[in-house]
Amino acid sequence: MSLISFLDYASVFVFALTGALVASRQQLDIVGFAFVACLTAVGGGTVRDVLLDRNPIFWIAQPTYIGVACGAALLVFLTAHLFESRLKTLIWLDSFALAVAVPAGTGVALALDQPILVVVLMGTITGCMGGLLRDVVLDDVPLVLKQGELYVTAAFAGATAAAFARPYFADPLPALVLCASVTWALRAGSLAFGWRLPAYKSRPPRV
Amino acid sequence: MSLISFLDYASVFVFALTGALVASRQQLDIVGFAFVACLTAVGGGTVRDVLLDRNPIFWIAQPTYIGVACGAALLVFLTAHLFESRLKTLIWLDSFALAVAVPAGTGVALALDQPILVVVLMGTITGCMGGLLRDVVLDDVPLVLKQGELYVTAAFAGATAAAFARPYFADPLPALVLCASVTWALRAGSLAFGWRLPAYKSRPPRV
Amino acid sequence: MSLISFLDYASVFVFALTGALVASRQQLDIVGFAFVACLTAVGGGTVRDVLLDRNPIFWIAQPTYIGVACGAALLVFLTAHLFESRLKTLIWLDSFALAVAVPAGTGVALALDQPILVVVLMGTITGCMGGLLRDVVLDDVPLVLKQGELYVTAAFAGATAAAFARPYFADPLPALVLCASVTWALRAGSLAFGWRLPAYKSRPPRV
Repeated sequence: MSLISFLDYASVFVFALTGALVASRQQLDIVGFAFVACLTAVGGGTVRDVLLDRNPIFWIAQPTYIGVACGAALLVFLTAHLFESRLKTLIWLDSFALAVAVPAGTGVALALDQPILVVVLMGTITGCMGGLLRDVVLDDVPLVLKQGELYVTAAFAGATAAAFARPYFADPLPALVLCASVTWALRAGSLAFGWRLPAYKSRPPRV
Repeated sequence: MSLISFLDYASVFVFALTGALVASRQQLDIVGFAFVACLTAVGGGTVRDVLLDRNPIFWIAQPTYIGVACGAALLVFLTAHLFESRLKTLIWLDSFALAVAVPAGTGVALALDQPILVVVLMGTITGCMGGLLRDVVLDDVPLVLKQGELYVTAAFAGATAAAFARPYFADPLPALVLCASVTWALRAGSLAFGWRLPAYKSRPPRV
Repeated sequence: MSLISFLDYASVFVFALTGALVASRQQLDIVGFAFVACLTAVGGGTVRDVLLDRNPIFWIAQPTYIGVACGAALLVFLTAHLFESRLKTLIWLDSFALAVAVPAGTGVALALDQPILVVVLMGTITGCMGGLLRDVVLDDVPLVLKQGELYVTAAFAGATAAAFARPYFADPLPALVLCASVTWALRAGSLAFGWRLPAYKSRPPRV
């Protein structure tokens, strides 16, 4: 299994867990769990493949991705009641999913020799789009654009790090590991220590 | 006219009626009716065609689909006030739309000799995506993921039935009729008799 | 630079301004500004390119579009506090963005010799989809389907005017100027003078 496939599988699995957790907060049935898990899990990669015109889409080429997402949905359906706080679990799982999805998107664009800005955008989009679809469709806590947290920023920084590091190594592995680390460190630092960028504040108009 | 075209036209017409009914609940003007009707009517099939890389998209190849959707919008604009309960009309019309859209999606994927899991997913996506787009864009009653009702489940069961029945017949017709029947029976049973799958219930964490 | 490129750049810039203004109303950070600005700015054109199967997508072929959108986001981040009413600024900017995006979409479809209905739809979709994505993702004031205002109608009328005028001129320019004028005049007239189409009103059922 190639490195990109491994990253795709890992990100599908972890994002599916987060989708299923959101489904559990909405008290859906098992098919609802599977539906939301699949949407979240393959959403980002599907947008990436459609934009880059990769055919067939990754989960149509290898439908086992869908099996993995459904397995994750079943796992959450059976065990979600064991977690003391599903919201906290959701937020932290989502940070790991982001940290594998960003290198998955970045790696695909690097392998296609896209210009650096496209590489960075594909990493960011692949990372953020699954969670964004989940939040828009389910109307639950929006994690991606939550005010005062690093999310898109973490994805963007990770993808940028990978794009710049790539030329210094023969193999893509170090750049993608760097990408995952930067992404997760920034997202986790934001969650744990409140790291943030200065936000826009409304001010009274100048006199 | 091929069977798939007929199913596409029928599903476009009925989904357009549901989109226009939602527009009437939001008191939009006639162009708003047409816009929401088109979005709902061709949304599911468009996502199917983009994912399967069918070119051109079905309603670009045959723009009469758009004419059908606009006709449905006009019909609802002129007659919606005749219905005693537009919500009830909407929900039941939507069940018929689902029952024709699922075989339309399933039939396309079967004709392209996709693996069985992709066939099932395309049927489910084609059926559910139009209604999902309508509900997300208009922020009206979300039918697709409403708790305690069979919707995705009905689509999934219908598509699965068709995928398994297909090899036993020379012609695709019986499998697609079976698909429509299973989908509609489950959705209607859920609406009329409260059929449902066990839903996830939050429970206190084990001690 | 071709006329279509110019229209694409102009519409990207002005739609990016509107996206960033919405981000400022939600008090996001600079990366949030850039993300929403890019989504709004390239959303409509991306949907157009995916539906028409144009490869590569316009902003993948020329990533400078993204640079333009990010520049617009930075500009708003630094200056938004100078505006007395950001909502009013947003609404009027959005009307200009619409008036350049509709001819951008129409021009592409005309250049591809699409049938007239597809030309009109591509103009309408390119114009409306960016603002629709912005409003759905950010849950802010929805401009596109706001009751009692011309928006989709303005886009549709502008695209229709261009499609019918095109055969009378050797060059696409007059048709696209007409398209922009009709679109903006209807949208601005709706905002300034309350022009509207009759909306559907719920009435009691006939006895």
